[in-house]
Amino acid sequence: MIYLKNDYSEGAHPRVLSALIETNLEATTGYGEDEYCAKAAAKIKKVFACPDADVHFLVGGTQTNQTALSAFLRPWEAAVGTELAHIATHETGSIEATGHKVLTAHAPDGLLTPAMVEEICSRHESEHMVKPKILYISDSTEVGTIYHKAELAALSECAHQRDMYLYLDGARLASALTSPENDIAPEDLAKYCDAFYVGGTKNGALFGEALVLINDALKPDFRYGLKQHGGMLAKGRLLGVQFDELFTDGLWFTIAGHANKLAKKLQDGIVEKGYSLLVHSPSNQIFPIFPDALVKKLAESFAFEEQGAAGEGLTCIRLVTSWATKEDAVDAFLAQI
Amino acid sequence: MIYLKNDYSEGAHPRVLSALIETNLEATTGYGEDEYCAKAAAKIKKVFACPDADVHFLVGGTQTNQTALSAFLRPWEAAVGTELAHIATHETGSIEATGHKVLTAHAPDGLLTPAMVEEICSRHESEHMVKPKILYISDSTEVGTIYHKAELAALSECAHQRDMYLYLDGARLASALTSPENDIAPEDLAKYCDAFYVGGTKNGALFGEALVLINDALKPDFRYGLKQHGGMLAKGRLLGVQFDELFTDGLWFTIAGHANKLAKKLQDGIVEKGYSLLVHSPSNQIFPIFPDALVKKLAESFAFEEQGAAGEGLTCIRLVTSWATKEDAVDAFLAQI
Amino acid sequence: MIYLKNDYSEGAHPRVLSALIETNLEATTGYGEDEYCAKAAAKIKKVFACPDADVHFLVGGTQTNQTALSAFLRPWEAAVGTELAHIATHETGSIEATGHKVLTAHAPDGLLTPAMVEEICSRHESEHMVKPKILYISDSTEVGTIYHKAELAALSECAHQRDMYLYLDGARLASALTSPENDIAPEDLAKYCDAFYVGGTKNGALFGEALVLINDALKPDFRYGLKQHGGMLAKGRLLGVQFDELFTDGLWFTIAGHANKLAKKLQDGIVEKGYSLLVHSPSNQIFPIFPDALVKKLAESFAFEEQGAAGEGLTCIRLVTSWATKEDAVDAFLAQI
Amino acid sequence: MIYLKNDYSEGAHPRVLSALIETNLEATTGYGEDEYCAKAAAKIKKVFACPDADVHFLVGGTQTNQTALSAFLRPWEAAVGTELAHIATHETGSIEATGHKVLTAHAPDGLLTPAMVEEICSRHESEHMVKPKILYISDSTEVGTIYHKAELAALSECAHQRDMYLYLDGARLASALTSPENDIAPEDLAKYCDAFYVGGTKNGALFGEALVLINDALKPDFRYGLKQHGGMLAKGRLLGVQFDELFTDGLWFTIAGHANKLAKKLQDGIVEKGYSLLVHSPSNQIFPIFPDALVKKLAESFAFEEQGAAGEGLTCIRLVTSWATKEDAVDAFLAQI
Repeated sequence: MIYLKNDYSEGAHPRVLSALIETNLEATTGYGEDEYCAKAAAKIKKVFACPDADVHFLVGGTQTNQTALSAFLRPWEAAVGTELAHIATHETGSIEATGHKVLTAHAPDGLLTPAMVEEICSRHESEHMVKPKILYISDSTEVGTIYHKAELAALSECAHQRDMYLYLDGARLASALTSPENDIAPEDLAKYCDAFYVGGTKNGALFGEALVLINDALKPDFRYGLKQHGGMLAKGRLLGVQFDELFTDGLWFTIAGHANKLAKKLQDGIVEKGYSLLVHSPSNQIFPIFPDALVKKLAESFAFEEQGAAGEGLTCIRLVTSWATKEDAVDAFLAQI
Repeated sequence: MIYLKNDYSEGAHPRVLSALIETNLEATTGYGEDEYCAKAAAKIKKVFACPDADVHFLVGGTQTNQTALSAFLRPWEAAVGTELAHIATHETGSIEATGHKVLTAHAPDGLLTPAMVEEICSRHESEHMVKPKILYISDSTEVGTIYHKAELAALSECAHQRDMYLYLDGARLASALTSPENDIAPEDLAKYCDAFYVGGTKNGALFGEALVLINDALKPDFRYGLKQHGGMLAKGRLLGVQFDELFTDGLWFTIAGHANKLAKKLQDGIVEKGYSLLVHSPSNQIFPIFPDALVKKLAESFAFEEQGAAGEGLTCIRLVTSWATKEDAVDAFLAQI
Repeated sequence: MIYLKNDYSEGAHPRVLSALIETNLEATTGYGEDEYCAKAAAKIKKVFACPDADVHFLVGGTQTNQTALSAFLRPWEAAVGTELAHIATHETGSIEATGHKVLTAHAPDGLLTPAMVEEICSRHESEHMVKPKILYISDSTEVGTIYHKAELAALSECAHQRDMYLYLDGARLASALTSPENDIAPEDLAKYCDAFYVGGTKNGALFGEALVLINDALKPDFRYGLKQHGGMLAKGRLLGVQFDELFTDGLWFTIAGHANKLAKKLQDGIVEKGYSLLVHSPSNQIFPIFPDALVKKLAESFAFEEQGAAGEGLTCIRLVTSWATKEDAVDAFLAQI
Repeated sequence: MIYLKNDYSEGAHPRVLSALIETNLEATTGYGEDEYCAKAAAKIKKVFACPDADVHFLVGGTQTNQTALSAFLRPWEAAVGTELAHIATHETGSIEATGHKVLTAHAPDGLLTPAMVEEICSRHESEHMVKPKILYISDSTEVGTIYHKAELAALSECAHQRDMYLYLDGARLASALTSPENDIAPEDLAKYCDAFYVGGTKNGALFGEALVLINDALKPDFRYGLKQHGGMLAKGRLLGVQFDELFTDGLWFTIAGHANKLAKKLQDGIVEKGYSLLVHSPSNQIFPIFPDALVKKLAESFAFEEQGAAGEGLTCIRLVTSWATKEDAVDAFLAQI
């Protein structure tokens, strides 16, 4: 079985694993107060050009979103995202579990726009309704699309004019930033977002996300929230060691570029053969539409997820590449369609 | 610096690390639905003699306690524990964060008794107060003491007579079960508890706790809670691989025995030299009381935590041993006092 | 200024007020454990033909919905309603504040259908998403429409087939049940719903809603939730006295019929004059669409709420009648358009 | 049966009821945005000398405490009170239900002191524990005692030095302020507290508490919380009308003085006859200790609450007077003992 199912099917990138092996028997302080976390945070602040940021390391994305948003919002404040937003659909109501509504806009390409925000805000203007307070975006999005710099800048302006925050879920940020269609520089994230996270789980780490707090208002006492949500790893240095390695010699970017390259080959090959796509994706998740019979046959050799019906006799599937994907896998897939 | 500070200062036991290395490049299904988790769960159910149990793997203890208790309780129901209970003191109100009060009894030795439960229940008998619903105990406790079988049986009876649950936090369960003073068999846990967790983080794993649900009432839909609290690890097999190895050839027990042996040597040596203890501990955490000056001097060579003042000019410190502690460290400590 | 703004603009119906005056100096037990509450509950159980129901009295609708739903749902379970559902739009996220998501379907007439429920359930089939567990409907709805018996029966069947509950928000239930277009008998509510509430605030009481729990699974310990949410009124008998009077000689029905009659006259008159409606309403809230200039002029003499723009130069307004509305007010309004 | 059971056994003071009757058929805007609420707020701000305060009207005490504290605290912040604090014991965990721990100090007289606060804070100094943020006190307390001005000032200083808030639960504030032993002026509350509430339910209103927000940091968006917790009464003017009357000609003070006078006569009479007290109370709740047989006999003619055993063969009971208590009742009671 060839896995094109996810970017978290394997363990860690060999260099990340080596770093863990090398440091395994060292004794350090717990809870992320060790030297490895400090080093990793320093590298992240340098890459994203935000020397005054606070960087916190968490284990996974749902936990990061929940811990961050619940720390940022007052009880009646809400997040605003697209209908595809991961927090709206695939995190089992973890934001609502902390008391906050998620307001959503219809956006089949997964991209939030200022117009959507304005429409939602126009319907939430009194204390009988929740108060929109934070914009949630993902880059790359849940359907593989990416934001462009002008779009990010416009969302940032839209948020700040309304005294709202802009938060970016970077579970697949490495894929977005290394996409051939990307024009957002790492420092733009720090410039436009109030907070964002740098995804490790889906790009070479065993696990781990690095939350970067830019806006000073969001920084105080954050570690209390980290602990309260079970996000303060006892052996916190495991996160530091991994991110330290990922941000050594640009590994985090290099391996995402590899995933993108193979995803592009896959998508281009599929399109060339005449199949259509749910949406054009410039990142490591692609969404081709195939006849049901072909999907069934492909499932014999390849592991992937079905997105759902896409018209009479057609099914949309999701194919994901990662640092661990081999070009052979892509070639084998293209050979079968 | 010699670490006697914690049982999570190092990485993983070499055998556990090897298992992770060997399986690193395998592609598996995510979210704990892989074969390694299945194998590990089967081994745990066998060791604890509970073939019908549900086993769920989580990353850490605070997360496990929070996810479990919030799934088990209705909104107005409360947990009952000692004043030292980890959920009452050192988890930043994570149980309250899910809406539930923690009722506590004074118990300097960390052991909950039916009499304490009865006293608390007698003060909570109407709907103007929270409803005590779950007993929370730790074995070993937060001060290193352990339960005996008769005590566990009595708490279980006390709980079930009142239609309450008995939950055991097993962060250091391996140390308790391998204590020379222990008379609780693994199968007793399944017999007396409604749920308990088998700690990995503090006994050889990089991270990980295995929650065992015995009572059928607690099983339905638990994975929803797991996901909602950010406890469903994307690369869930990392937990399966580690627990599979820990429960191969009794590794989980063997290495805890090692920690206990060194803790006993340490405690006995300290007592022999005439120092007193906060409490006699038969497990891997000990709490000697030293003159302040000695504590200061010890801190130059050893990493440990201070528990607080223990009378005029005296300080109680906590020393912890683990699978990674070397006998040399113990000898060096005893030589200094 | 003539008020057609709401059905809670005045105080209590004179008979209800008299009952409060007559009993004012009696001393009773607090917290709803008095004889008046018992009498009122008995009358409600008789009218709705549910002798085994539990009846709880609360002060207002938001509190009732929040207290009920949070008691009925496990942490990851969600409510399902229309996009207009009061809990989804006008209760400041009070359901989310207790941890639960509200899933919504597009329904401009405010009526939930089994097809909508099925579509939502089909998108929520794994533990990565919330679990739809309770159907929330209002009768009359937020736009004045009402359910018919066959629709209610179908929703009930839909809910129960999926192991879900059917909950009916009866803030304006009296208006629905006395609508000339209604075919639901009071006993049908007990037959088809798992819980519903009988609105007092908007139909003659100073304040108060009577929550009726039909499904045995929803009954245990409910008063704990009542107290926890601040819904247990110290002078609980105030609620009993009012509902006792409202359900004496059919007052609750009679006065709602009065409101409906005037609303019908208003709506018929408006339609006769050639204006259109947002939706045809058979109950005490109507939604005519007028030219902006007319709305402006009407606002000089009448108090009402604007619903929003309804096309170029048109505005939809809401007019509400109540037990306190006089026919003169309706005539005056019709004379102005 | 003569009621000495509570200060909420009857309806409203006749003058308050008259005000409701007189205004009953007026139509006003809902949700507390009417003229009566504005007038009542102005009077309260004048009496308590806080022209810049925000005043919000809520229905009951539990709701007020829950709505206020949950609006004031970040997720990991905790309230600090005595073990007798109403929020700690008799509100069914309503503070925990919003996510916050209540830390308590042992204080048999119900009075919190700076020393208690310091002791609690000294045990909560890292992010592994909740962060003490608000001091909760009641005046009069749950056992009838009252604060003196120096004590209130010291608590205020203690709170503000630690960047904490001081919140005063004034369910029985009128009784405290009119106690012969009181030296706190109304304006002292505004001077020393960050927020406090002025109790109506237990002093002449049908229901209602007026929350006064002094500290500017606590004011923004409070009405969102009011609505979210179901505390925004549709016919909000009912609260305005009542408080307007209570603060006309000093009625709120006068009737509390009456209750205190009778309580004093009762307590003095009991002491004269040789019985002891749980605690000396200068307010409208007293706690005499009687032989069990006497308690049993008294219960035939008088309604009161038992506080619990108070030594071999002795029971402590609670007697409460109110604006509605008649001197005859006190005389009758004293005659029986």
